[in-house]
Amino acid sequence: MTSREQHDRMANAIRFLSMDAVEKANSGHPGLPMGCADIATVLFTRFLKFDPKNPHWADRDRFILSAGHGSMLLYSLLYLTGYEDMTIDQIRNFRQLGSKTAGHPEYGHATGIETTTGPLGQGVANSVGFALGERIMNAAFGDDLVDHFTYVLCGDGCLMEGISQEAISLAGHLKLNKLILFWDNNNISIDGPVTLADNTDQVARFQASGWNASHVDGMDPEAIAYAIEAAHHSQKPTMIACKTTIGFGAPTKAGTNKAHGSPLGAEEIAGARKFFGWDSPPFEIPADILDAWREAGRRGAQPRAAWEGRLAKSDKKTEFERRVKGDLPGNFDTVIADYKKKLAADKPKVATRKSSEMALEVINGAVPETIGGSADLTGSNNTKTSQTKNITPDDYGQRYVHYGIREHGMAAAINGLTLHGGVIAYGGTFLCFSDYARPAMRLASLMGIRSIFVMTHDSIGLGEDGPTHQPVEHMAALRAIPNHNFFRPADAMETAECWQLALKSTGTPSTLALTRQNLPALRTEYVAENLCSKGAYELAAAEGGEAVVSIFASGSEVEIALGARALLQGHGHPTRVVSVPSFELFDEQSDAYREKTIGKAGVKIAIEAGIRQGWDQFIGSDGIFIGMTGFGASGPIEALYPHFGITAEAAAKAVEGRLHKK
Amino acid sequence: MTSREQHDRMANAIRFLSMDAVEKANSGHPGLPMGCADIATVLFTRFLKFDPKNPHWADRDRFILSAGHGSMLLYSLLYLTGYEDMTIDQIRNFRQLGSKTAGHPEYGHATGIETTTGPLGQGVANSVGFALGERIMNAAFGDDLVDHFTYVLCGDGCLMEGISQEAISLAGHLKLNKLILFWDNNNISIDGPVTLADNTDQVARFQASGWNASHVDGMDPEAIAYAIEAAHHSQKPTMIACKTTIGFGAPTKAGTNKAHGSPLGAEEIAGARKFFGWDSPPFEIPADILDAWREAGRRGAQPRAAWEGRLAKSDKKTEFERRVKGDLPGNFDTVIADYKKKLAADKPKVATRKSSEMALEVINGAVPETIGGSADLTGSNNTKTSQTKNITPDDYGQRYVHYGIREHGMAAAINGLTLHGGVIAYGGTFLCFSDYARPAMRLASLMGIRSIFVMTHDSIGLGEDGPTHQPVEHMAALRAIPNHNFFRPADAMETAECWQLALKSTGTPSTLALTRQNLPALRTEYVAENLCSKGAYELAAAEGGEAVVSIFASGSEVEIALGARALLQGHGHPTRVVSVPSFELFDEQSDAYREKTIGKAGVKIAIEAGIRQGWDQFIGSDGIFIGMTGFGASGPIEALYPHFGITAEAAAKAVEGRLHKK
Repeated sequence: MTSREQHDRMANAIRFLSMDAVEKANSGHPGLPMGCADIATVLFTRFLKFDPKNPHWADRDRFILSAGHGSMLLYSLLYLTGYEDMTIDQIRNFRQLGSKTAGHPEYGHATGIETTTGPLGQGVANSVGFALGERIMNAAFGDDLVDHFTYVLCGDGCLMEGISQEAISLAGHLKLNKLILFWDNNNISIDGPVTLADNTDQVARFQASGWNASHVDGMDPEAIAYAIEAAHHSQKPTMIACKTTIGFGAPTKAGTNKAHGSPLGAEEIAGARKFFGWDSPPFEIPADILDAWREAGRRGAQPRAAWEGRLAKSDKKTEFERRVKGDLPGNFDTVIADYKKKLAADKPKVATRKSSEMALEVINGAVPETIGGSADLTGSNNTKTSQTKNITPDDYGQRYVHYGIREHGMAAAINGLTLHGGVIAYGGTFLCFSDYARPAMRLASLMGIRSIFVMTHDSIGLGEDGPTHQPVEHMAALRAIPNHNFFRPADAMETAECWQLALKSTGTPSTLALTRQNLPALRTEYVAENLCSKGAYELAAAEGGEAVVSIFASGSEVEIALGARALLQGHGHPTRVVSVPSFELFDEQSDAYREKTIGKAGVKIAIEAGIRQGWDQFIGSDGIFIGMTGFGASGPIEALYPHFGITAEAAAKAVEGRLHKK
Repeated sequence: MTSREQHDRMANAIRFLSMDAVEKANSGHPGLPMGCADIATVLFTRFLKFDPKNPHWADRDRFILSAGHGSMLLYSLLYLTGYEDMTIDQIRNFRQLGSKTAGHPEYGHATGIETTTGPLGQGVANSVGFALGERIMNAAFGDDLVDHFTYVLCGDGCLMEGISQEAISLAGHLKLNKLILFWDNNNISIDGPVTLADNTDQVARFQASGWNASHVDGMDPEAIAYAIEAAHHSQKPTMIACKTTIGFGAPTKAGTNKAHGSPLGAEEIAGARKFFGWDSPPFEIPADILDAWREAGRRGAQPRAAWEGRLAKSDKKTEFERRVKGDLPGNFDTVIADYKKKLAADKPKVATRKSSEMALEVINGAVPETIGGSADLTGSNNTKTSQTKNITPDDYGQRYVHYGIREHGMAAAINGLTLHGGVIAYGGTFLCFSDYARPAMRLASLMGIRSIFVMTHDSIGLGEDGPTHQPVEHMAALRAIPNHNFFRPADAMETAECWQLALKSTGTPSTLALTRQNLPALRTEYVAENLCSKGAYELAAAEGGEAVVSIFASGSEVEIALGARALLQGHGHPTRVVSVPSFELFDEQSDAYREKTIGKAGVKIAIEAGIRQGWDQFIGSDGIFIGMTGFGASGPIEALYPHFGITAEAAAKAVEGRLHKK
């Protein structure tokens, strides 16, 4: 049992590392680590199950710092508990280019960082995915292998962000009782007292969403410990409202927004040293305190070794390790190849959302770790297959999540599931509402993880729901996100290939944009190669000579491109069609392949029921673009495509106008 | 007093118009109008202050259908109460191309539609802006001219969306007691029972956010009326949880998700006719019922006339009318011209966020209707000026809103304020967090309204906060939204001009992207013309001959472009620089102006600390781009620009490599 004095000195180690690192960087947020040092010390020294020497131990407890600006809290803990890559030099180099100690915690930059946080509320919503992932894996592999808690620390900002409501209501609904949230209730936001903008009774709010919630003194270690103990025995997720003082110890800035997001200054830090009786220089931790922290970091070694023993003896060892590693089943490519052969034979004329369901039926049969879901558009997104029954609080052993009308919370939960490991999560909504999910989709890209987003109703082709629901700019906007594979397949064959690519892209999230309307089979021959893997490829060659026209199109407009080609060929103009399912994968091809695919035809034209932005890389700034220049309209699809001039005839006419001019 | 029988028949008129219109369109959502017909009938016949013959009456009550998929409820009401443009033919043409009866209610398509809804939660969040707008205008013009309620009807989806939490906690904080929300508590979402995904105690949740909230039978007219009466006397906003049956009257589909979003089918409709004893054919309303509805629509004529009388006598008439019309004060352009002269003299070297604050100091002094705010980044966004003190529940006569950490709710509230009229609202956050606000920003564009978004920290130039906070793709993503002016000014002069344009763009929302870091004055001569109004213009001409190099840049990179030009000129390459503050305004220029501005230099290069997407229209697909290809990094700005190769030297070198090759 740690004495109060020792606890205080251990907590103060966090405080001084944090204030000194921020001071040296001349940038950062000292207030949270100073206020939450007691919470963190209690959690990391008495409760958290982790092993710094084996940081990827699959059954470790997860700790998520949703208030990512308080990154020095996490870096301090990683250093103090003995993560090998978190050296004191890294702490000294806080926020410097190339250091592991980035401004906000970044997944993959240093071990022990479970998720990238900073954009507020994301960690809270990730934590729902982590906690759900634990329950799913527990159901699959039992208590012996999977039995851990998910802890998340958040601030007022996280709780004001709307995504937090989506997260907590989903967690409450799913009764994720191994999820424990600490709210750093310091009553300070950047602009001043929280009461400038908010008077929410957060405890009552969480209770309304099915959580246990209570207030504690967040600077009293025994009160914190008692609350965590109680949470461990809860049947619901638990929120612990921890009353803290931001920047605790800073003589004049503590308890004010001046302690939030800037260095405290030499004078305040000197005052804090006096206040805490801390006489070590910056970045030096007294040996006994560092020893005590390192000992806390060794607490997990024995339980981990015991867990390794259980794993070694388990008959599920191979499958567990495969899933945690993120490898697909060995027969995955064969299964897809067989399915592609079937498609070549069947030539289905279906919407790509339906093609996606058909592909998923095959995939979910072969890959037991996929977890599907939708933001209340299951029947429209076609995300549910025969294998995926509903996950409920009474049965976590299933594979489908009704995320509710919570696109943002869903995307962040999918990130959490993915980061937890052992599962491959996908979820659906309408492409237009990718806007709601976008902050979480961006973080998936920044983290480089295999989150998969299924976005149906991908153009004016959805018809009568009108411009509020019709994506126009969304394709360009999603292609804009770095490290994000945006797929827009043209038929069932391409949809199967895009799904194959999405599942194999372990370092890149994917979005599949899918139609509501039926599309004919365009790829009717079996080809072993995944043609979509090149991003763009010649689907139909020019006939009767060198191509004078190249048509580029994606998704539902490839059919129109082929129609335009038929008209142009009919008029004696050799015309080729290039299908472009993914800009990103095309960008990764060799210059030679790219040049050959773009070709040298005198007239280049792109067709997509969205805006032009981004297509100039195929057609040049003088190319012809057939698509949208503004918002859509409400009406039947049969009326809309002609209304907006997105037809084979309009495309052929525009091309012939250009050929004539030349 | 309406008899219960008459009430029922009036409500049934809504039900049959709705189910018959959806049936004829073979598309739409009959369930909500059928379930909420009683609520709507009570509200529109007994409470709502409105005048269909004068639909823009400034002091009308506002009714917002946040559950926009129930659009037939609204269209039915508009037709029944006698809005002239909402004819029975429009109802017959529900969801057809060119009709006023779009799939979801669209602001501007038909009178009486206060805001565009459909993307869930937006109407709830708009309503906070409407209700706040009312209080602000009331404080400015008194009860005689401004004294109305804002009613909003929402469904489960609106309340599951996170934005609803941002909205209700803000409304509760601001004690907007003239805001009354009806929750269509039908326990059905698209996937099935709401309990598939949610078990929130919504009444408790609203109470936790400072609202009155209670349950009523949403199909009992007297209970509804009683609840509205009570709400009228509340000191807090009121939520009325109305228990309803979705698709009420449909024999087998009522109370199920089958009544939500598809035509009921002839059999169900025949059954409903029998159930309600309604024997009129589709689109025919019994004369006595139509008369009763039209009479309800005439209730507001007298109060409106009385209000007109008060306005005519008011000494504030001219100012009130100017503000409601959205006109700027007559001296606005002079004030800006004077300020530009001062800038030409002062040549301030400041961040454009500071330039924005300086411009706002001038604007807020001249334009009393501006309402500023920030999502808890006031000191970072520089959105507060000497004229804008905090709006509080005790003082709505001020001009600054601390929106809290609620970017999405802020943007939607700004839309509501703008739609309410009489105010010009702007609000700030970091550009990276435009992602959080994006669904509301898109709707501002779709509606064509003057919402203004101030987005600072607009690139890697923000430094140490790192890639979670550094926009890379956001400029492209915002330029992608149709009818959205995205401004990225290069110095204080351009910032003033961009603000002038934003305020004058009454039909287009604006986003200003502004730097954290200081920038030199580049435009140091006073020019009467607003050069930014052309979107792009030659800032520095080539010297010593025809330009062989054209450099295009925006914002903070214009300084770098000028540096590159100096290097290239020094090496004997005549080089010009074009500043590009707005792609959108450039697109609107004549072909001649565009061609001249792009020019014929052999080497074209663009410099922007973001991705290339969109720049090909200036430089062609073979142009040189100096910018970002992936996410940023955490470090001091001085390290980041060289690290990512965004320097004058790198640009000049790339150009010379190309010149050499030619």
